[in-house]
Amino acid sequence: MSEGRPEGMTADSWQEWPHNRWAYQHIDEVLRTVRIPHGSTVLELAEGAPLEVEGLDAELGALSTDGLIVLRGREVVLERYLNGMTAETPHLLQSVTKSICSAVLSPFVAGGLIDVRSPIGAYVPELRGSAYDDALVQHALDMTVAVAYDETYDDPDSDVNEHDRASGWKAPRGGGAGSIPEFLATLQKNGEHGRRWHYCSANTDVLAWVLESVTGTRFTDLWAAFWPRLGAEHDALMTVDVDGFSLASGGGCVTLRDLARFGRLFLEGGRGATGDQIVPGEWVDDVRWGVSPGVDWSELPETFQAHGSYRDQFWRPGDGHGCFFGWGIYGQFVWVNPTTDVVVAKLSTQHTADDVLVAHHNHALLDRLSTLAAAAS
Amino acid sequence: MSEGRPEGMTADSWQEWPHNRWAYQHIDEVLRTVRIPHGSTVLELAEGAPLEVEGLDAELGALSTDGLIVLRGREVVLERYLNGMTAETPHLLQSVTKSICSAVLSPFVAGGLIDVRSPIGAYVPELRGSAYDDALVQHALDMTVAVAYDETYDDPDSDVNEHDRASGWKAPRGGGAGSIPEFLATLQKNGEHGRRWHYCSANTDVLAWVLESVTGTRFTDLWAAFWPRLGAEHDALMTVDVDGFSLASGGGCVTLRDLARFGRLFLEGGRGATGDQIVPGEWVDDVRWGVSPGVDWSELPETFQAHGSYRDQFWRPGDGHGCFFGWGIYGQFVWVNPTTDVVVAKLSTQHTADDVLVAHHNHALLDRLSTLAAAAS
Repeated sequence: MSEGRPEGMTADSWQEWPHNRWAYQHIDEVLRTVRIPHGSTVLELAEGAPLEVEGLDAELGALSTDGLIVLRGREVVLERYLNGMTAETPHLLQSVTKSICSAVLSPFVAGGLIDVRSPIGAYVPELRGSAYDDALVQHALDMTVAVAYDETYDDPDSDVNEHDRASGWKAPRGGGAGSIPEFLATLQKNGEHGRRWHYCSANTDVLAWVLESVTGTRFTDLWAAFWPRLGAEHDALMTVDVDGFSLASGGGCVTLRDLARFGRLFLEGGRGATGDQIVPGEWVDDVRWGVSPGVDWSELPETFQAHGSYRDQFWRPGDGHGCFFGWGIYGQFVWVNPTTDVVVAKLSTQHTADDVLVAHHNHALLDRLSTLAAAAS
Repeated sequence: MSEGRPEGMTADSWQEWPHNRWAYQHIDEVLRTVRIPHGSTVLELAEGAPLEVEGLDAELGALSTDGLIVLRGREVVLERYLNGMTAETPHLLQSVTKSICSAVLSPFVAGGLIDVRSPIGAYVPELRGSAYDDALVQHALDMTVAVAYDETYDDPDSDVNEHDRASGWKAPRGGGAGSIPEFLATLQKNGEHGRRWHYCSANTDVLAWVLESVTGTRFTDLWAAFWPRLGAEHDALMTVDVDGFSLASGGGCVTLRDLARFGRLFLEGGRGATGDQIVPGEWVDDVRWGVSPGVDWSELPETFQAHGSYRDQFWRPGDGHGCFFGWGIYGQFVWVNPTTDVVVAKLSTQHTADDVLVAHHNHALLDRLSTLAAAAS
């Protein structure tokens, strides 16, 4: 256990440092949650020859790390828990949840229930008249919806903070939307879809809504169908709003090893613990190789190299290894290196949501570990 | 699983029928919760010769039952799950939680950390100036604090509903207390303590506050120390307010068998699964035989016989068997019959909180089962 619930933590402060150090490991005490049960088949991870990395502990401390694991193939070669986190602790993923949403959604695309070239308004009538009416599902997947949405974390009047209040992640103010769907329906179009990459968390919640609409099933039930097939060892949690709607853009909580297993799934061609195809092979390929022609990437974070991009709710640094990863604010990562067959998962509670230098440091560390792990084998 | 999250359920309606039918089995999806882990030692319950009760199923249906179990000694002789409840489902206890609070508190009285003859203001400085300042701990235990508190469930302006809003159990209105402790400190004295029995849920939250104050430990951590020693088989849940303060008066959720184990504890003289004394023998005796001289019992529910009373957060019907029980609104019960050595636990989601005829029907059923179970052995 960590040092205990912080004094003075409020409904508005838990997400930020230093309260996040405790809260991200105790989300059910802070928010409404739905439990996603694990199953009886666990994707077994063997113990591999330990990876020694000089100076790692100081680096992990500087990056406010709560947990770090490195998988080479299905072998654990490095595993650290700090700040009271244990192997059994579900830790908030923030936007790494988006990548899980992508995986949960993928079979419904392959199965034909969702056409990524169809407008979202065709699936969710409640979004007609909003920015999403004529945006295609693929636009939402790739963050190229032209939507007026300001994802500035430290401005209380920004859209992302209004989104937080609608989700129950922050205390309500008078007059705001009372639920996630109500909030999503207020968002307006501000250009041509598919032209400009613009990171917008609302897009993922819209994807979850599409998924719920076509399946008639709650997102958490769909995740619950996926989780045992992946071979997860522990229950996951999902935060929900007052009406039980999932925050698919950021509300997932999983243990460190289960996050690594999730990354591993993409190196197993989308096959889960039982060998079943739980993410279609074409989806895995699209996450890795899919292109969004003509998109203006100028809003990508500076930490990205010249060829960085984003696809299907995954980040792609555009490096020589063909890496891709899930990324959440305050330091959450699942980094997949297909060249070295290595997955690195890191959960943290940083001082700041998205400081560019800290992001660069994290990316460099994850890249380095995913390379070192292969070299040491 | 039950039929799924009800359409139209709100932050104000979940507690009531028909939304309670789903919500009481999914409290973590509705409220903030702290998980109380079970331990490795389980109080084993054997399967006994089944108790056959004619017409029982119709009766359980009429009483909106979710679960019913009858223990004869340590043998399960009857066990039913309805409305989607399973042996693994934690179900809201409502005020049966009060009886658990009593048990968790009891060793600190025996150990001398709490003197039940001391005024509460001596333990909780924040309550000085409130009704609790000069009320004794025993007054709170026995519901004889003279406090202006109206426990009318269906009046939105009643104190119990203000209490619900402070706890996060109902949507906030402007100007109300923002947390349970803040609410408790507003309550005012309206007579002489120890004279009149007056059921007031706030008293139990005050007891939890006393306990937290003298131990420097959260109530949920104290429950977590108690739970494995009892021999609980499953995790429990406790609802907490925005500051993490427990609703000891009603926020507990446990599985049916664990509730029966809790009742069994009082027939084992307070000894838990490992034989340790986890509730002092004197406390068990006081729950059963303790007297509150000179108290006016006229506010006791009509279902009580002439000699009914309330002691240490337990109800005593005053029957010939010396029964005592924990009781929560909408039909939650743990009924202990020391004469027949039988425990009956029943969890329900009734149409009404505290209808007198339904209460009478429940008491009669529990009494009958606790007698029949012995006769059948």
